[in-house]
Formats: sequence, structure tokens, C-alpha cells
Amino acid sequence: MSNPQLAILFFLQFSAILLTCRLVGLIVKRFGQPQVVGEMIAGVCLGPSLLGLLLPAVQSSLFPKFLRDAGEVVVIGTTKVPHPLMSVIYCIAQVGLVLYMFCVGLEFDTKLLRTRFRSALSVSIAGIAAPFALGALIAYFHRDDASLFAPGVSLTEEILFLGAAMSITAFPMLARIIYERGLSGTSIGTLALAAGSSDDAAAWCILAIVLASFSHDWNIAAMAIGGGVLYAVFTLTCIRWLIAKLAAKLSPGGAWSVYLLPFTMILLMVAAWWTDYCGIYAVFGAFILGIAMPRGAIAEELKSKIEPLTTNLLLPMFFVYSGLNTQLSLIGAGGLWGVTIIILLASIAAKGLACFAAAKLHGEPTREALAIGALMNARGLMELILLNIGLERGVITPALFSILVIMAVVTTLMATPIFELVYGRHARAAGRIGSAKAA
Amino acid sequence: MSNPQLAILFFLQFSAILLTCRLVGLIVKRFGQPQVVGEMIAGVCLGPSLLGLLLPAVQSSLFPKFLRDAGEVVVIGTTKVPHPLMSVIYCIAQVGLVLYMFCVGLEFDTKLLRTRFRSALSVSIAGIAAPFALGALIAYFHRDDASLFAPGVSLTEEILFLGAAMSITAFPMLARIIYERGLSGTSIGTLALAAGSSDDAAAWCILAIVLASFSHDWNIAAMAIGGGVLYAVFTLTCIRWLIAKLAAKLSPGGAWSVYLLPFTMILLMVAAWWTDYCGIYAVFGAFILGIAMPRGAIAEELKSKIEPLTTNLLLPMFFVYSGLNTQLSLIGAGGLWGVTIIILLASIAAKGLACFAAAKLHGEPTREALAIGALMNARGLMELILLNIGLERGVITPALFSILVIMAVVTTLMATPIFELVYGRHARAAGRIGSAKAA
Repeated sequence: MSNPQLAILFFLQFSAILLTCRLVGLIVKRFGQPQVVGEMIAGVCLGPSLLGLLLPAVQSSLFPKFLRDAGEVVVIGTTKVPHPLMSVIYCIAQVGLVLYMFCVGLEFDTKLLRTRFRSALSVSIAGIAAPFALGALIAYFHRDDASLFAPGVSLTEEILFLGAAMSITAFPMLARIIYERGLSGTSIGTLALAAGSSDDAAAWCILAIVLASFSHDWNIAAMAIGGGVLYAVFTLTCIRWLIAKLAAKLSPGGAWSVYLLPFTMILLMVAAWWTDYCGIYAVFGAFILGIAMPRGAIAEELKSKIEPLTTNLLLPMFFVYSGLNTQLSLIGAGGLWGVTIIILLASIAAKGLACFAAAKLHGEPTREALAIGALMNARGLMELILLNIGLERGVITPALFSILVIMAVVTTLMATPIFELVYGRHARAAGRIGSAKAA
Repeated sequence: MSNPQLAILFFLQFSAILLTCRLVGLIVKRFGQPQVVGEMIAGVCLGPSLLGLLLPAVQSSLFPKFLRDAGEVVVIGTTKVPHPLMSVIYCIAQVGLVLYMFCVGLEFDTKLLRTRFRSALSVSIAGIAAPFALGALIAYFHRDDASLFAPGVSLTEEILFLGAAMSITAFPMLARIIYERGLSGTSIGTLALAAGSSDDAAAWCILAIVLASFSHDWNIAAMAIGGGVLYAVFTLTCIRWLIAKLAAKLSPGGAWSVYLLPFTMILLMVAAWWTDYCGIYAVFGAFILGIAMPRGAIAEELKSKIEPLTTNLLLPMFFVYSGLNTQLSLIGAGGLWGVTIIILLASIAAKGLACFAAAKLHGEPTREALAIGALMNARGLMELILLNIGLERGVITPALFSILVIMAVVTTLMATPIFELVYGRHARAAGRIGSAKAA
């Protein structure tokens, strides 16, 4: 199949994805869920779990998973060659995600963070430590359970992986819920974003340690942690200083104003490459670069030019991609409902309650603290990325994978309704936050 | 290579492409060339013709052409499996191109066209007929030349293919030069766009006839011509009427204003799929859809949200992709300099002079008519797409391919300087057109 032939199917996929996202988005809106949850569900609908179940032939010709030659799946060695369009969707999704997280960084209010720094730090630490401890405990008690962990995985690796899986926060999902609910730039939004981003970065570092231990290559962990720290420090000092120096020229009306967007795009792609290369992931790189940009005219200009196309065209690909790769029918096939419920309750309690308690202890009002607990609890699709890596590298079994998928979906679906119940409605009625955005 | 691993190389490619485009763009600007020519040259620089010549190992690891397994190129049957990232770049380039041509359609002034309709029609017909006739003549005299045409190609096919290759106009390139030179919405810009778009559509129809004849399947031609006409009529009547009906609600401040962009994106992807599927190509589909949108607030809103990210991030991929696939070293290898010069001169004379004469005959002032001749003469990368299809399907030899690549590059490089010389400077000094845009 030549590239022009591929493009025909690609545009058909793109049409189906955008259409399904909107339709499901309109439906879930009636149940108080944000558009982003609609996109996640749209992915599951278009994947093997729904379309594949109802119309398997349509699903596999619309979203072929593997490259075929005369009907046969192409195999190299023992691995099936993935269909190139799955790589296309993945890469476009990554571009959308990077642009989006950059905008989230642009909106991030570092001044507001300074006044709430201790709260943010406590929420962040509580949001990692409590679920990690419970995850470790569960892993310890199931250490010899072959239905959960693959053979050859050491106890340390089991503890680290389940701990990381339970302590992750869906940073892009969190960011989008905060945007859609009108929380951008508010103190609660800033607090949740700060805590969410550091939790996210910490979880990726733990994953890097697990993978390093698993492949006996400690460079993996050193690269992720060292490269990530180096990147954050360099970007928030040198790059921030450089752009601040050039800000007058790059601002609208300045001599170099036409170069602002192309120059930023180059920086952003380099940042995405480096953080992906280190294993700390492009999501983090883009967010930090957004924080490093000067506030005011430049941030506004960039946001107004990047955000519309990103949220309406590119970003939906990210939320759909993971759904396309999720096979919900695996769930329950192992008969592991007991451990599923334990992991689910432990995740919710540890993350939600710990974050609530940490925020409350640092003087946040009860409703605000509850709202932070509700938001931090969403695992979203970052969880799915981590799980896919764990499954692919043979750390966990398909059964544990499915259990953790349930956990990710349930915690994500819970987030917005609980947030609205404990905080959103009251705050909106009192005029403390903006109105919820329709799209 | 899993998708997350692919993404690392992808972001590196993306960084290299955007950086090279800007650097080359700044250099060619000193020679009076627009940014888009810089992007085309950037592609050639990153491809086998320059980077591949100087640092072959770097080129092939930065832009691998084929999928490899343990160092060996993967072969299915007799075809080498292309590297998935070439498909990724191609598809992103297509998305950029579609968004861009949609914006060109949004700016297209149908009212202005009506006053100049006869000029536009004459320029369009002259711009097809004259180069087609000369191309046919050259093909006729070289009908038995095995160095130009592959064996088994009939005389009719030879005539049609060379005719189409010589009569094509680089519609996206033309559109971008018109934008960069400040000609959008002027009478000369509108005239050139109208003539360019119909020439482009006609050339693709001729190509469809060649391919139909070559594969003895007349459905190919019927689909391209019938599907294209059906699409244009349906879009410019039903879709146009529907959106005009909803315009008040979709406009900024209207009840459905948040749905304007997502709704348009779905329409655009469906239009791209259908026109690609028919073989008339997505470029044409996107342009027609842009024309069908209501002018005024809606067109402004869409343009301001789509254009910045498209021209600065996605569209450069299109101009670079073709360069990545061009092997300039093939040129001259056949010792066919004589026929090269004939084809080059015939293309320039037939297209440039015929369009000039047609415009002049319909009462356009001499400078305007010369400017139209200069702009219509650019073959740009549409030519390369057509040539790649011809080469891939075995209609032409690599030698004729290389000759036509020279022709495309020379006619494209000529366009802007000649335009500036005969018209741009004078018109700009007299305040009839806006200033040239830096980016």
C-alpha cells in the first residue's frame, strides 16, 4: 500500500474518530461528564470492545491493527508488524498532546503556586506516598500469584510497578477537566495541576526504575531521572531567561513577532524529543516549556494560535488511540473480582483521601480539599500508557492489566461528577469559578 | 519498534524539519524567494540529494526509508516495506495541506471572480491547452525513445502523461505565494487562484485517464471525473445552503458557536476522504469546501483558528516530504540534456506565454497579464506528486522523471522573482497590494 493509498483510509479514520468523539461527547454531557471522557469512551467504542464486537469486519478494515499481505498478517521473526496507520494515529496523538500540555503550562500560574507551595507539595507527596504504600502492600500479599505477575519478576519489581500504577495521576486528563470546568488560573486549579504534574513525573521515574531493574540496565533509570531533572533546570533557567530577554521583540508588534510561533514550535519539538528520549515523556517536557514562557502578551498570543486546532483536531486522537487498544472483554475472564475490588477501593481511598487530608491539613477549606481529592483521583489514560508498557515488557499479566484498566476507567468517570457535587456547583453559584465550557 | 519508540525518532525528525525550513527560509529570503521555496529546498537538503550525499549514515538513520529487521530491509514478496515514519510524515503533510487549502478557499473571493470570469476561464483553458499541445508534440516525436517512456506504454498514454505533466500548475504553491506576496483578495490573486485550481483539477483528471488506460480500468477515470463533479456540485449547493442556514447560530456569539470549529473539522476530513477516494485528491476537496463556507465572521473565525498552526507546524511537512523523496543525482545521468532543455523551454513558453496572452486578450493590463503568466508557470510539488505516480506505475522512466523534476524546480524558482520584477514592486509602490509577509 503506497502512502497516497494509505491517506484515503487515514482520512476515513480521522472522520470516524472526530464524528464519534462529538456524538459520544454530546451523550456523556447529559450525565455531567466532560468532553474528554466522551473522547476516551469514543476510542473504546471504535475499538475491539464495541465496534469489534458488533461488526468485527468493519472494525478490522477501518482500524487494521497489523500489516497484511494478501490477507495474511506480516510477521517478522515472531512479532507481527503493526499497521502503519496505527503509528500515524499514535504520532499525531503525540503532537496533539505535546501542543496541549504546552498550553496547560502557559496557563499555569507560578505566582499563585508560590503562595500555595506547601499545600501543593503536601498534596503531591500524599498523592504518591499513600497509593504507593497500599499498592506495595497488595503486591506483597499477592507476590506469588501467577495470575497477576509474570514469572521471573522480582518482588521489588512487583512492588514498584503496582505502586506506580496506583499512584499515577492522569495529568493531561486532569488539565483538560480543569480547563473544561472553568478552573484555569484559579487557586484550586493551580494547586491540582502542580501536584498532578509532580506526581506524574514521579510515577514515570518509578516506571523507569522498574524497567531498569527488569532489564538489568540502570542507565534507563539514570537517564529518566537525570535527564528529566537536567531538562527541567535548564528550561526553567536558561531557556526562560533567553526568551524573557527576547520577549519585547517577539511580542505582537515587535520586530520578530512573526517568528514567535515558528520559533516556539521548534523549541517544543526539541523538548518533546529530549524528554521522550530520556523516558520521562514528552507530556512533561511540553508542560515545563509552557511554564518557562513569559506570561502576558506572548502567552496569550501563543495560546490563541495553538489551542483551537489542538483541542478540536489533534488532541482527540490521543484519547481515542488508547481506547482503540483496549480490550475490555479481558476483564473478568480471570475470575479475579476479589482482587479487582480491593485494588479499586485501595486506589480511590489512598489517592482521594490522602490528597484531601493533605490539603485540609494545610488550611484549605473542606470543599476545596475534597475537590482536590476528586480531581487527583482520575487516572485516565496515563495509567493505560503505563499499563501497556508493563504488559509489553512482560511485567504484568493480561489479567492484572485488565484489572488496572477497570481502575483507570472508574476513577476517571468518578472525577467530574464528584468534583461538581462537592465543589463545582457551589463555587460556580458563588461566582468563584467560570462557567463550564461546552467544548 | 513499538509506537512509543517510534515517537522518539519522530520528534527528532520533526525538530530537524522545522529547524531546516526556517534556516533555509531565511537564506532564500535574501534572494527574493518566499518561505515556501525555502521549505521545498529544505526537503531536498534533508533528503538523499544533500544530507544523504554528505553524511549518508546520518541521513538514513534520521529518515529511514524502509523498515529494517536486524539491519536488513524487510521485503514482502518483491516490495520493500516502507518505514512507518515515512507514512506518518506523509499523513501529517496531508492534514496540513488540507487545512491550508481550506483556508485558501475561505479567502477566495467569488464575487470578484464573477467580474473576471471570462478572463479566468480563458487563462485556465490557455494554461492547459498550450502546454498540453506542446507536451503531446514532444511525446509524439520521442514516442519510441526507450530512455523516456517505459516499454508497453501506448502512444496515447505517452501523449496524455507528458501533456498532463507540462500543463499542471502548483496550486498549493501558487496559493502560498499569493498569500506571502500580499495578493489575497486582490483581483489578480483571485484570477490566478481560479485559473490555477481548475488547471489543477483538469490535470488530475487527465492523470486519472492515463492510469485508467494503463490499467485498462475505465472506472478510475469515471470515478475521478464523475466523483469530482458530483462533489463540487453537492458542496457548492447543498452544503453551502446548509451552512448558510446555520450561520447565525454558528457565528461567534451564536448558540452553537463552540461547535463551529469541531463541526467544520469533521466536514473537512470527510471531504478529504471522498476526494482522495475518487482520485481527484484532497487538495481540491478542501479548497471547494472553503469556498462553500459563508464569508464574513465565520470565515474570519475559522481562518484565525486554523491558519497559524497549519502554516507554522503542519504544512512544512508537505513541502519537505517531496524533497525527501527526490534524488537529484539521477538528473543528467541519462545524458539527455537536449530533450531536457526542449521540455524546459516548451513548458515555460507554453504556460507563461499562453496565460499572459489569454489575460491580455481579455483586457487585463500588460503588467497584470505578465504577473499571471509568471505565477501560473510555477509547477512546484504537485508536479512531483504526479511524477511519482507516473514512475511508480511504470509509465515513465527514471530519466524522464528527473528531467521533469528539473522542470518543476526551475519553473517554481522563477515564479516569485519574475512576478516581483514585472508587477509586485510597482503594485506595492502604488499601494495596490499589501506588503510581502515575512513568514
